[in-house]
Amino acid sequence: MTQSLGYGLIGTGFMGKCHALAYRSATAVFGDVAAPRMEILCDTPEEKAGRFATQFGFQRATSDWRAVIDDPAVDIVSITTPNGMHKEMALAALAAGKHVHLEKPMALTLQDAREMAEAAARAPGRTMVGYNYLHNPAIAHARKLIEEGAIGRPIHFRGLVDEDYQADPDLPWTWRARRADAGLGALGDLGCHLVSLAVLLLGPVASVIAEMQTVHETRKLADSDERRPVENEDVASALLTFESGVNGLFSCSRSAWGRKSRIGLEIHGTKGMITYEQERMNELRLYRNDGTGATQGFTTILTGPAHPPYGEFVPAPGHQLGFNDLKVIEVRSFLKAIADGTLTFPSFADAFHYEAVIHAIAQAAESGARVRPEAA
Amino acid sequence: MTQSLGYGLIGTGFMGKCHALAYRSATAVFGDVAAPRMEILCDTPEEKAGRFATQFGFQRATSDWRAVIDDPAVDIVSITTPNGMHKEMALAALAAGKHVHLEKPMALTLQDAREMAEAAARAPGRTMVGYNYLHNPAIAHARKLIEEGAIGRPIHFRGLVDEDYQADPDLPWTWRARRADAGLGALGDLGCHLVSLAVLLLGPVASVIAEMQTVHETRKLADSDERRPVENEDVASALLTFESGVNGLFSCSRSAWGRKSRIGLEIHGTKGMITYEQERMNELRLYRNDGTGATQGFTTILTGPAHPPYGEFVPAPGHQLGFNDLKVIEVRSFLKAIADGTLTFPSFADAFHYEAVIHAIAQAAESGARVRPEAA
Amino acid sequence: MTQSLGYGLIGTGFMGKCHALAYRSATAVFGDVAAPRMEILCDTPEEKAGRFATQFGFQRATSDWRAVIDDPAVDIVSITTPNGMHKEMALAALAAGKHVHLEKPMALTLQDAREMAEAAARAPGRTMVGYNYLHNPAIAHARKLIEEGAIGRPIHFRGLVDEDYQADPDLPWTWRARRADAGLGALGDLGCHLVSLAVLLLGPVASVIAEMQTVHETRKLADSDERRPVENEDVASALLTFESGVNGLFSCSRSAWGRKSRIGLEIHGTKGMITYEQERMNELRLYRNDGTGATQGFTTILTGPAHPPYGEFVPAPGHQLGFNDLKVIEVRSFLKAIADGTLTFPSFADAFHYEAVIHAIAQAAESGARVRPEAA
Amino acid sequence: MTQSLGYGLIGTGFMGKCHALAYRSATAVFGDVAAPRMEILCDTPEEKAGRFATQFGFQRATSDWRAVIDDPAVDIVSITTPNGMHKEMALAALAAGKHVHLEKPMALTLQDAREMAEAAARAPGRTMVGYNYLHNPAIAHARKLIEEGAIGRPIHFRGLVDEDYQADPDLPWTWRARRADAGLGALGDLGCHLVSLAVLLLGPVASVIAEMQTVHETRKLADSDERRPVENEDVASALLTFESGVNGLFSCSRSAWGRKSRIGLEIHGTKGMITYEQERMNELRLYRNDGTGATQGFTTILTGPAHPPYGEFVPAPGHQLGFNDLKVIEVRSFLKAIADGTLTFPSFADAFHYEAVIHAIAQAAESGARVRPEAA
Repeated sequence: MTQSLGYGLIGTGFMGKCHALAYRSATAVFGDVAAPRMEILCDTPEEKAGRFATQFGFQRATSDWRAVIDDPAVDIVSITTPNGMHKEMALAALAAGKHVHLEKPMALTLQDAREMAEAAARAPGRTMVGYNYLHNPAIAHARKLIEEGAIGRPIHFRGLVDEDYQADPDLPWTWRARRADAGLGALGDLGCHLVSLAVLLLGPVASVIAEMQTVHETRKLADSDERRPVENEDVASALLTFESGVNGLFSCSRSAWGRKSRIGLEIHGTKGMITYEQERMNELRLYRNDGTGATQGFTTILTGPAHPPYGEFVPAPGHQLGFNDLKVIEVRSFLKAIADGTLTFPSFADAFHYEAVIHAIAQAAESGARVRPEAA
Repeated sequence: MTQSLGYGLIGTGFMGKCHALAYRSATAVFGDVAAPRMEILCDTPEEKAGRFATQFGFQRATSDWRAVIDDPAVDIVSITTPNGMHKEMALAALAAGKHVHLEKPMALTLQDAREMAEAAARAPGRTMVGYNYLHNPAIAHARKLIEEGAIGRPIHFRGLVDEDYQADPDLPWTWRARRADAGLGALGDLGCHLVSLAVLLLGPVASVIAEMQTVHETRKLADSDERRPVENEDVASALLTFESGVNGLFSCSRSAWGRKSRIGLEIHGTKGMITYEQERMNELRLYRNDGTGATQGFTTILTGPAHPPYGEFVPAPGHQLGFNDLKVIEVRSFLKAIADGTLTFPSFADAFHYEAVIHAIAQAAESGARVRPEAA
Repeated sequence: MTQSLGYGLIGTGFMGKCHALAYRSATAVFGDVAAPRMEILCDTPEEKAGRFATQFGFQRATSDWRAVIDDPAVDIVSITTPNGMHKEMALAALAAGKHVHLEKPMALTLQDAREMAEAAARAPGRTMVGYNYLHNPAIAHARKLIEEGAIGRPIHFRGLVDEDYQADPDLPWTWRARRADAGLGALGDLGCHLVSLAVLLLGPVASVIAEMQTVHETRKLADSDERRPVENEDVASALLTFESGVNGLFSCSRSAWGRKSRIGLEIHGTKGMITYEQERMNELRLYRNDGTGATQGFTTILTGPAHPPYGEFVPAPGHQLGFNDLKVIEVRSFLKAIADGTLTFPSFADAFHYEAVIHAIAQAAESGARVRPEAA
Repeated sequence: MTQSLGYGLIGTGFMGKCHALAYRSATAVFGDVAAPRMEILCDTPEEKAGRFATQFGFQRATSDWRAVIDDPAVDIVSITTPNGMHKEMALAALAAGKHVHLEKPMALTLQDAREMAEAAARAPGRTMVGYNYLHNPAIAHARKLIEEGAIGRPIHFRGLVDEDYQADPDLPWTWRARRADAGLGALGDLGCHLVSLAVLLLGPVASVIAEMQTVHETRKLADSDERRPVENEDVASALLTFESGVNGLFSCSRSAWGRKSRIGLEIHGTKGMITYEQERMNELRLYRNDGTGATQGFTTILTGPAHPPYGEFVPAPGHQLGFNDLKVIEVRSFLKAIADGTLTFPSFADAFHYEAVIHAIAQAAESGARVRPEAA
């Protein structure tokens, strides 16, 4: 097993808890990385930090995020704070020589993401960005099938990512609606996940044309009758051209009633097709033109030990992994890469491209022109 | 009941048979229109025409399509021949004072469709174009739900239409690949169906930006080693803006392995969502933000007598209509409108817009610019 | 093509209309049997008969069912009246030398069914019983797969057939609740369909043990406060042993909310499994242990021309047959067998076994003992 | 938070790892129970125990299970060894005053389970049996819906539980096939899970009639040509009568190709229906006769924070829990009940009934008679 590393966590919300659980479990699940030492947790106020440190099993708590970064016992820092705080924290952590595990999106602007990727390239620490859906055994299997030629040459892509957390017209205005605080809307929350999957399966994106809409143009403040503008997009759609020549369709919405965690993918190939739906994340559907004639159809593959690393969690197929398990795979992958000195994936450099694509989509929608994602 | 009309059919292929079956059944199913007299059927050679006249129950057969149009006993002419023959036949039938039931697409070019629509506007005969999916009780119910506000204000559209009849790289070259004979590719075969549904549910399309691809750029002749170019598109995708301000996504492929008759629709609204899949044509899925909290979800509605005119076919719900039943609804609608002197739907005028949209998509894909569909 | 036969129909309800439509269409669809002459239709009162004769395209109408049976122009008689009238009509039609197309179940009691089967065995006319689900191309394909060994040796069966037409506790009492008028309840309406499919796929049933329940023990008369007992079962369940040694599970309910036409089948074999759901009647699911490891799963086969006689209706796969199309297949099969002098299927003799099984289930439920279905 | 308890684990296989992961995570997930101290782990040989102690984060390792039970630092013992060892270990642990977390089934014979339940009733320690599917938020929601009357009075039950781990005829003979070592077959592995769910939702079972079959009667030894008999059932089916008067259907198979973790449930009520499929464990389907007419249908509910304790894992709906998460819920429930002095569920006493039912099924199948489960 590898050498134990000290771990610090900044932020205890949705993703903060998810990181804490994953760092607690990765060794017990995989057995090939040393258990990290749960050193210090940061949140505000202090009382909250203390409470969560106890709950999550950290030794110390702080309300000062710099205390995490400056802590000599800490080797890895998870940053799971609101997006607007990512850049400062990540740069500081990198400067302090830490390995950085950052939640997506990297930053509010692509310029910020670029600075962060450049800092990472110069820093001794390794980086990992929380594009957790990449780590699903079903997705890994899809990638393997494509690489093995199971569907022939990929020719077309369709991707839809939807949730409904901003669907209700009566929700109050929040900072999420202000571009300066939140950056992009649906693209930043959801769209970049879809891009990460598309790029994993089909390679980098070469150019886009796009449209965006803000469905609910203003929202009422929670505590007054004033209405404020919603400055970022509820829905964005694009036509993508991949560098491989494949083209495809992309759409994301945070106002799609009934969709709770929908990421729908279709990869069309010259010999078959693969489809996937995140809300049934343990299933992959495969059609192959394999000459079986009257018995051809889409096969629903239930993930199991034949789809690594599913078997590390449960030795029996079809028993279902959950959302939090994907983060365990991500954490173990990070710990292993640090220990082995191999590439982390997705690093800041990888994630930069995903985020370059969503910013290209926003720019294409605003300009009406075809836009190439910025190169790293 | 209405007065009996004489019926003539040109073409006995996929759609020709479908028309014949529907004209035979419409009265027995609905009981509110007089049974058409099955007068004369045309195909070539003569022997084939005679054989099908017997099979389909026509009194006479001919290999000369003008004999159908000139037949004084014929009031309605169905034209189900290859697309390149539609214009001449339709214009002749209109000129002869017949009612014309034409298969889609109307013509190879939009200019031809325009001439046909103009001729129809001047002619005494009525017109109907075979956009049969419009007549599905599930689609009618979707439209009713939207009109009643069940999903609030529509905000976004997604439509995908796919088949795999041109997916195999080894299929031989045919006339379908030559623009002069076949016109558009996937757009003309499949895409226009999707447009017809989108327009029924959300109104006319204002503009598009688009991409197209020919997946298999050449195909081998069946009887030699020569390869010929495929001149029309296998896949086309577009971002649509409707006149209502709704925008959305459109994609069609004739090279989508595993899709046999896929028409997937999503209508996103401010209070809910409707989804539909043609390969399960008796189901409609509806999500409403109706305050039921922990029991909210997509409801799968199985069509039944509550969804007219399903009950004319089967008085028990969930028993399933089939593809051919949609044509029966279309035919009865045509016969009833002729008898009552009401508008037919979709007429040449309605269909012109659908086809203007697919030609706009093709033009947008070729030019890289936003294109408005031509007005009638 | 074969020689044209005269056709008479008794009853114009759900199944009467279904028969009329099918006899009108069978020749046009299949082209290998002569079109029957639509001679005479019977219903009461006379006015209704006349109206439906016009709608369905019959030459004559009557309110006297014996007039159909005595009509020398009639060769085939369809009997689609309430179950309690089947026996007298069928015996009379057989005695008059007619071919008899009878709706299921054959009779209220097994003794009656036996007399009818015996009469059929002696009569010159041929018989067909309306177990229409047997004629689904998906079911035919399931049978072929089993016969070819695609799932190895069948080892286990599960069958569930449910509707909800008697689920509402507030529905009024009708004659359907009286055993003397209606015979069995869910077993007679639904259960026998499931038995017919089980026997087609797995052979005759050797013995059963069973339970029944009447969920709603009394119902209120429509026009008074009086409540009358429901004398037949709403739900019946059984453990079946087939003569082949396969055993399995059977359950039927007419009080199953949400089920509109549910017939769920599972055939477990030593090398695979087949499943089917009637509410998606154009799909068949097949799992084979075929050594493909990580890509194994249930394949959803969409019926198409590869599954005869689907292609007679639509030449393109996945376009969907409907409920009424199954009756067209049944009618053509009957017409063809009459013309060719081959066995009809399912004849009175075949159907007797299906009905012997449901009566065995009822008897087993009442006695608590294992019961063997009566032999023919 | 509650007082920390010492934890010892016996067995490190499928369920051993699952327990270890859950005891590591329960506090971090829920925050309302003190984190257990991971004291000692037992497996053989010693080397393996040491390796897993490191991986799972235990302080000590042993190859002697009595060392766990005798360890004064241990308050709770998980027993996850092969079923034949449960009784001796559980009795010893109870005698030593420990709380016992036992995997299902409790024992090879019902007599053994009875002795264990009786010992538990006298012992100071609390008990929990690993019927983990009971803890699914979807199942909890189903129970709540039933209790609230959402489907009216329950009238009928259907339950099917299937896997395919013994489907392959060519699998070698193992101890699992010997009744003295393994006890029941599919009933003990799978059937008891289904019973636990049925009893949770519908109350205790009053009587059963049943059938069993051993599909593969002999199997070849792995290392010779000798074939040995399979002494326990591959498939068992039963008709159940619940004490409430509800009756229903039950079937389990370990030879059901394609089923990886299938637990299918249907609860029929006078006002609606609930269905569930374990292979899509984050979904619940609900039909209510709620007067919405043309929009009625089965609603697919995706679990989320509205379905406690889902929200403890992920604050966003539809993100999916996994199999291992159910064990975390079970462990927290056990820790909380111990701390609060409330009833554990399911305890040895609860589980005794589940296992009495499967033994009643086996006995009914062997005798051909109706059998009542033994009372505790």
